[in-house]
Amino acid sequence: MKITAVIMAGGRGERFWPKSRTNLPKQFLSLTADKETMIQKTVSRLLPMVDLADIFVVTNAQYASLVEEQLPGLPKENIILEPCGRNTAPCISLAAAVIGKKYAGEAMMLVLPSDHLIRYEDMYIDTLRKAVSVAEEGSRLVTIGITPTYPETGYGYIKFERSAGGESGVYQVERFVEKPDLETAKEYLASEKYLWNSGMFVWKTSTILWNLEKYMPQVYAGTRAIAAHFGTEKFDAALSECYAELPSDSIDFGVMEKAQEIYTIPGSFGWDDVGNWLAVERINETNELGNYVEGDVIAIGTERSTICGKNRLIAAVGVEDLIVVDTDDALLICAKSNTQDVKKVIETLKERNRTALL
Amino acid sequence: MKITAVIMAGGRGERFWPKSRTNLPKQFLSLTADKETMIQKTVSRLLPMVDLADIFVVTNAQYASLVEEQLPGLPKENIILEPCGRNTAPCISLAAAVIGKKYAGEAMMLVLPSDHLIRYEDMYIDTLRKAVSVAEEGSRLVTIGITPTYPETGYGYIKFERSAGGESGVYQVERFVEKPDLETAKEYLASEKYLWNSGMFVWKTSTILWNLEKYMPQVYAGTRAIAAHFGTEKFDAALSECYAELPSDSIDFGVMEKAQEIYTIPGSFGWDDVGNWLAVERINETNELGNYVEGDVIAIGTERSTICGKNRLIAAVGVEDLIVVDTDDALLICAKSNTQDVKKVIETLKERNRTALL
Repeated sequence: MKITAVIMAGGRGERFWPKSRTNLPKQFLSLTADKETMIQKTVSRLLPMVDLADIFVVTNAQYASLVEEQLPGLPKENIILEPCGRNTAPCISLAAAVIGKKYAGEAMMLVLPSDHLIRYEDMYIDTLRKAVSVAEEGSRLVTIGITPTYPETGYGYIKFERSAGGESGVYQVERFVEKPDLETAKEYLASEKYLWNSGMFVWKTSTILWNLEKYMPQVYAGTRAIAAHFGTEKFDAALSECYAELPSDSIDFGVMEKAQEIYTIPGSFGWDDVGNWLAVERINETNELGNYVEGDVIAIGTERSTICGKNRLIAAVGVEDLIVVDTDDALLICAKSNTQDVKKVIETLKERNRTALL
Repeated sequence: MKITAVIMAGGRGERFWPKSRTNLPKQFLSLTADKETMIQKTVSRLLPMVDLADIFVVTNAQYASLVEEQLPGLPKENIILEPCGRNTAPCISLAAAVIGKKYAGEAMMLVLPSDHLIRYEDMYIDTLRKAVSVAEEGSRLVTIGITPTYPETGYGYIKFERSAGGESGVYQVERFVEKPDLETAKEYLASEKYLWNSGMFVWKTSTILWNLEKYMPQVYAGTRAIAAHFGTEKFDAALSECYAELPSDSIDFGVMEKAQEIYTIPGSFGWDDVGNWLAVERINETNELGNYVEGDVIAIGTERSTICGKNRLIAAVGVEDLIVVDTDDALLICAKSNTQDVKKVIETLKERNRTALL
């Protein structure tokens, strides 16, 4: 069976302001020293398993030229442009319908975020191959779980159960749960029965479409009607006419929390969702003082800090546990303990109509 | 007797980098919200007592145009341009000789730094008037002392003694002492016998010249020879030929530590030497969170910080006790506890020959 990949690249990535902007969200940024952008990394790590011609990117229409620039080898028709964001269910449903049409009714789909980082790419491919082999059988939905290392409250969790006689390393999913509070997250961790929901899914087009028809009939019908025009001149018009009408729901809420026959494979490939500026020191090499520094920086008595310079010298003196990000028109100086408050800067900019800085 | 003022404006002010540069030292910067520069403030607070025509500025030749721009009413011949820095003794000696010549042998001289801040300007004038009245009698050298409020180790101290039957508020100086260590500074404070040496002096030209001739004959003779050409075309040539030959010594070391008949008047006019970036929050109004902010700044969860923006937005998130100074080509981020290390940035820039940033 043809293996295809759907890369979901519609995110806004506000947590990487001021580097990320409305017109340049996180997936199109480089946050590592090698200068490859997040979406470029996402595509290249897939190539041992999926041909570039079989990779689809679903993103907002305003990012069309970014995708074309950053992924020049991608067939243009594989870039599916949403006129507006409608969460993951319509995005995945449309992609499944399009792929079903393009590959004559059936293909394997890897559904992947565009802005995560994977440290062990061989293991990642091995895990995806295993997921494919599980998804090939019957009508199974497979999700890649991540073994938690601490009680994170920002992710959804997957409760799994060991099925007697099942294949080694594959677990049945008992249920999907929403982001827990800290107390609950600690219990999850202690129970050894929960994995983080990474948002990576593997299934056949027929399986996900059957589930969508059952659990999200409106999304299913709407995206099927749009996909009917795929490959024709009418596709864009159908998209912009109908897509906004679809309910905005996540695939987790709309399908995964209701469906049967869900399996999870725990990935141990060094996953990082690169959720905010704190991630930069995790995914890059820091120096002996724990600093990650790029650009023209003089650091004196400075420890455990991330300093991303651009065109000007940054002198950091006696600075500890700080994140500094310089751009041409805006500078962020943020305590590591307060990265979640970067969104308050964005709220303030919105309130003041300072759109040039958003 | 004519009252003149000599404003010493040769300092480099490296501690205000990146706002201060080799070509724009502290005395020519505005560090207060009113945008007046330090030297402009120094001159304007003197005007109730000294005519602008009787104010002299001694500075390095490279700052000639800065002085002319910032003090447009000052007679051009009152700007004495040093070809190189030679500490305060040659500077004061030359000014005394020039003033002696210009005012036919005798005038009162107020010798003042160009980069300090005075909060109570009326009291300042009152103190200087009193100093003048003390200096008029005999051959007295008068220095303005500042009552210490904490055991500062960065200033020299003046040990005074109460002279029986002396004028109220005027004290004889027993000796000048160099910058003490912390233990000694604490003892000075506890003894109630020491004042900070503010570097402000009042004397007649005849008195200081007599002392210079006695204790620093080389400086005296050299500057007298130069001053002989004051008001003629040969003055500049004489300066550039002879000034560099003079020994580089302070008036404190060269005269004040040796001379007799020294008096001190404690000033209670709200003196601040504006010694480093920490001063900015002291000499300006801070908001209810203890922040001093100028420019385009969004501060979220930020306390006790000084943020001087320039052309770009600065977003400070969760920042505490930090000094941020932005300029076109360099940005300083400095913990308040480490302002003394700004000089290490300058050393690093010198080592790397990055003269454009110095």
